[in-house]
Amino acid sequence: MHAITCSEPGGPEVLQWTKVADPTPGPGEVIIDVAATAVNRADLLQRQGNYPPPPGASEILGLECSGTISSVGAAISLDHIGEKVTALLSGGGYAEKVAVPFGQVMPIPPGTGLIEAAALPEVVCTVWSNLDLVANISEGEWLLIHGGGSGIGTMAIQLGRALGARVAVTAGSAEKLERCAALGAEVLINYKDQDFVEVIKDETGGRGANVILDNMGAAYLDRNVTALARDGRLVVIGMQGGTTAELNLSTLLRKNATVHATSLRGRPGSEKAAICRQVERTVWPWISAGVIRPVIDRVLPLKDAAYAHGLLADGQTTGKVVLSV
Amino acid sequence: MHAITCSEPGGPEVLQWTKVADPTPGPGEVIIDVAATAVNRADLLQRQGNYPPPPGASEILGLECSGTISSVGAAISLDHIGEKVTALLSGGGYAEKVAVPFGQVMPIPPGTGLIEAAALPEVVCTVWSNLDLVANISEGEWLLIHGGGSGIGTMAIQLGRALGARVAVTAGSAEKLERCAALGAEVLINYKDQDFVEVIKDETGGRGANVILDNMGAAYLDRNVTALARDGRLVVIGMQGGTTAELNLSTLLRKNATVHATSLRGRPGSEKAAICRQVERTVWPWISAGVIRPVIDRVLPLKDAAYAHGLLADGQTTGKVVLSV
Repeated sequence: MHAITCSEPGGPEVLQWTKVADPTPGPGEVIIDVAATAVNRADLLQRQGNYPPPPGASEILGLECSGTISSVGAAISLDHIGEKVTALLSGGGYAEKVAVPFGQVMPIPPGTGLIEAAALPEVVCTVWSNLDLVANISEGEWLLIHGGGSGIGTMAIQLGRALGARVAVTAGSAEKLERCAALGAEVLINYKDQDFVEVIKDETGGRGANVILDNMGAAYLDRNVTALARDGRLVVIGMQGGTTAELNLSTLLRKNATVHATSLRGRPGSEKAAICRQVERTVWPWISAGVIRPVIDRVLPLKDAAYAHGLLADGQTTGKVVLSV
Repeated sequence: MHAITCSEPGGPEVLQWTKVADPTPGPGEVIIDVAATAVNRADLLQRQGNYPPPPGASEILGLECSGTISSVGAAISLDHIGEKVTALLSGGGYAEKVAVPFGQVMPIPPGTGLIEAAALPEVVCTVWSNLDLVANISEGEWLLIHGGGSGIGTMAIQLGRALGARVAVTAGSAEKLERCAALGAEVLINYKDQDFVEVIKDETGGRGANVILDNMGAAYLDRNVTALARDGRLVVIGMQGGTTAELNLSTLLRKNATVHATSLRGRPGSEKAAICRQVERTVWPWISAGVIRPVIDRVLPLKDAAYAHGLLADGQTTGKVVLSV
């Protein structure tokens, strides 16, 4: 088969369309003939050599895909061959074929095409697991989402709303904020000329955000803690602003508040499978009903992965960039 | 009535036995004729002017007491007058009488005397709320308790064991560690000559502690995060080592871990009442059965509160110092 491989750690130019050996399914795994995959920010870090795949995972980039099951490993029924599916991967999605534990395979939500389905697993599973399992968000709570225009952000707005939360977002342009508003965000904060701490306090009668979904890490830690309401939960899922910063425990204690940091990829397979089952049960019906829509900036050929990485790095995209095989 | 009052913020010498006005019960409150109260580290901070009472609370020190209900406010049945009780206070315990919301009043555990009962509310409610509600500790998990010889520590060892956890403690002397072992701690770490991170890793097969109950705050933050297992929960309930320190979010994220900081006193009355009900139902039977014992270093007359504060500040006590009226 062909796949996008990295000749060495570096810029987008190290990504090459190469002939490689087909994957074989281990016990409990299936092979998916990939229809489409999608770009995640973690892919950019992995390409740079800063986010090595977990032990046992493919060296090939790509954390999600859609496609058709073409063969199965031990303990998986042959009946699944031919099924159109979408899957949460530990790697290997930027390829014509990928091996994946069957627990991380989900049906395509009824009414959704293969291209759209490729944009769902990583963002839906990440957002669902953090809002529901980690932050246990409740109806009527305020959710502040940093990077509202990103793939994660555009899904978090919709899922937050579906779970009954009120949503505030930060983003870097009026155009992105407009897209966020269309998806259900009530409070729109342009981080280039507004202080999100002040805005969220003003909009919540001085109380602050009950839950913050953060992709900035160190750069926002102190301000995020300041922006939290009593009993608030800060959930750090990205560290685009660095990894280490001062934490004021006194502020945290006064608020009875919590700092979580989580990574979907680092979870063991059993947890990923459990998250997939919950997503199928809860989120897929919302997608079929049109309550939640995959937000896709554009679809490019997989061979153009380098160009796609450049777009994401420049922050010019809203929602997901899908790569079709 | 008489009470211990602070003439001004300062050392133990500012504590004075003074004549003051009797408290009157507000709606939903009762007056307790205090039999005994107990010293908490928070009292030392409040005496120094570093821990002001929450709005509406008594200016008098004292976060817990035992005694007899002598009058009741609106909406509370007169039938309660004469009941022997113990109570979680927002302040006012260092006195002959104290007013307290009835929701924070608990019966004396059957078989327990008034003096012992005065040593229970603050430590039991603090430890219970943090191990169960905040950290959601499970059977077989490793619990690391800093300050194992303190009032909180000696109760946390016992409650941790009763909840099925395996317990490691740090303390500053062989004598305190021996007391901790007698209460059920399996791993004993003298922080003066051992590195708790190394010891806990060794004792848990490299995995680390699932839950850490911490009273040191900033001074231990980085090492606590390093000592956490995957999915670990650090619960900061004291800041004897300062309030602000560097947090490595990357380590936290790799472990899918959590930093909580909580204060029982800062919780609203409704939450305190809910905690008291759970403690009555779950912990009181363990105390009546002798599974959990109040650990009392000594009992002093309330007039000697200044001396008691000095003992606690010197770290020479194991368990609680009770002040009898």
